[in-house]
Amino acid sequence: MKLYGYFRSSAAFRARIALNLKGLAYEQEFIHLRKNVQRSDAYLAVNPLGLVPALDDGGKIITQSLAIIEYIDETHPEPPLLPRDARGRARVRALALAVACDIHPIDNLRVLRYLAKPLGHGDHDIESWFNHWIKLGFDGLEETLAGDGGAGRFCHGDAPGLADVCLVPQVFNAKRYPSFDLKPYPTIMRVFDQCMTLPAFDAAVPEKQPDAE
Amino acid sequence: MKLYGYFRSSAAFRARIALNLKGLAYEQEFIHLRKNVQRSDAYLAVNPLGLVPALDDGGKIITQSLAIIEYIDETHPEPPLLPRDARGRARVRALALAVACDIHPIDNLRVLRYLAKPLGHGDHDIESWFNHWIKLGFDGLEETLAGDGGAGRFCHGDAPGLADVCLVPQVFNAKRYPSFDLKPYPTIMRVFDQCMTLPAFDAAVPEKQPDAE
Repeated sequence: MKLYGYFRSSAAFRARIALNLKGLAYEQEFIHLRKNVQRSDAYLAVNPLGLVPALDDGGKIITQSLAIIEYIDETHPEPPLLPRDARGRARVRALALAVACDIHPIDNLRVLRYLAKPLGHGDHDIESWFNHWIKLGFDGLEETLAGDGGAGRFCHGDAPGLADVCLVPQVFNAKRYPSFDLKPYPTIMRVFDQCMTLPAFDAAVPEKQPDAE
Repeated sequence: MKLYGYFRSSAAFRARIALNLKGLAYEQEFIHLRKNVQRSDAYLAVNPLGLVPALDDGGKIITQSLAIIEYIDETHPEPPLLPRDARGRARVRALALAVACDIHPIDNLRVLRYLAKPLGHGDHDIESWFNHWIKLGFDGLEETLAGDGGAGRFCHGDAPGLADVCLVPQVFNAKRYPSFDLKPYPTIMRVFDQCMTLPAFDAAVPEKQPDAE
């Protein structure tokens, strides 16, 4: 398998963690987002949506990090990244989507770039925007994780899964600006610290990728 | 079952279509997003993330439209909203996520409001923003649907499913401003028109909901 990614892409980071948790070997091809390689003809032929990650599994391309992770989980069931019961699966997917739909896309590089140009915003406005959407999302996630009884050592019980795979890269993003206060999120940070003790998470961090700058 | 929604919410629209395709009876409780009812203490007790939709199934709350739809599909398997094969499932999920992650959240009401205040943008900038993200997403979706051989009468083969459930509300959003040109998207519009012949889609449209204004 080959993963098209970028060291700093939060969505590619998710896919790396999932592949590592499954113990799957994969090569990586790096698509330099800041140089707009994702909009090159060569990459658009791989993924017409012009985004990373994309997974090449025997010549078949699968796009979108959550679709990639569910595919890996269906084709390589052990260890499972989703619970067995429908309600547990719904809880884990909802936690994952709370990051993947409601925080990350709004703070994505291409959106921040649009704020700078054409909209003309400077660093201060962009930092406030970036932190605003993480705070909104983390407030709800913290309350859910601390309050609904589903979390154990990880987001759902005592084994890492899809929700953790999405949460950890988002915490990395939250640390981008020192102005973002992580103290109101003790449950998120407890799960984050637990995840980071695992080699599958640690090996997937941006700074350990070959294309890290 | 009870669905917390709002007539104009694209994510609630998806959940309504899915429930209708399954032939499930449900009551609706309407959360007035423009009046910020989603941030009321009463609703935050239902969904700490302060977003619609949320599904109450026997007192258990499920949030996030895609998690709700997968839950409905797992607990009421017929007719299926996802294909049986892992690659087909990955394709359908990727199409759904291309809307649910990469278009819709960036054009959501709360984001448009933030552009207006505190960022101070007027109607023209907001319309350009709104259309920009739909165009980027639809360009990739059109190429995928027209080019990868997976589409039939619907996004995946000849039966409606999760990808159609996400695509149709996004086409409704794309029609919000007459300045958005739908002509470059003949495959998207062919699928859209096919979906709209089905009562499950038609009954779910915003203007047919009891809270429509």
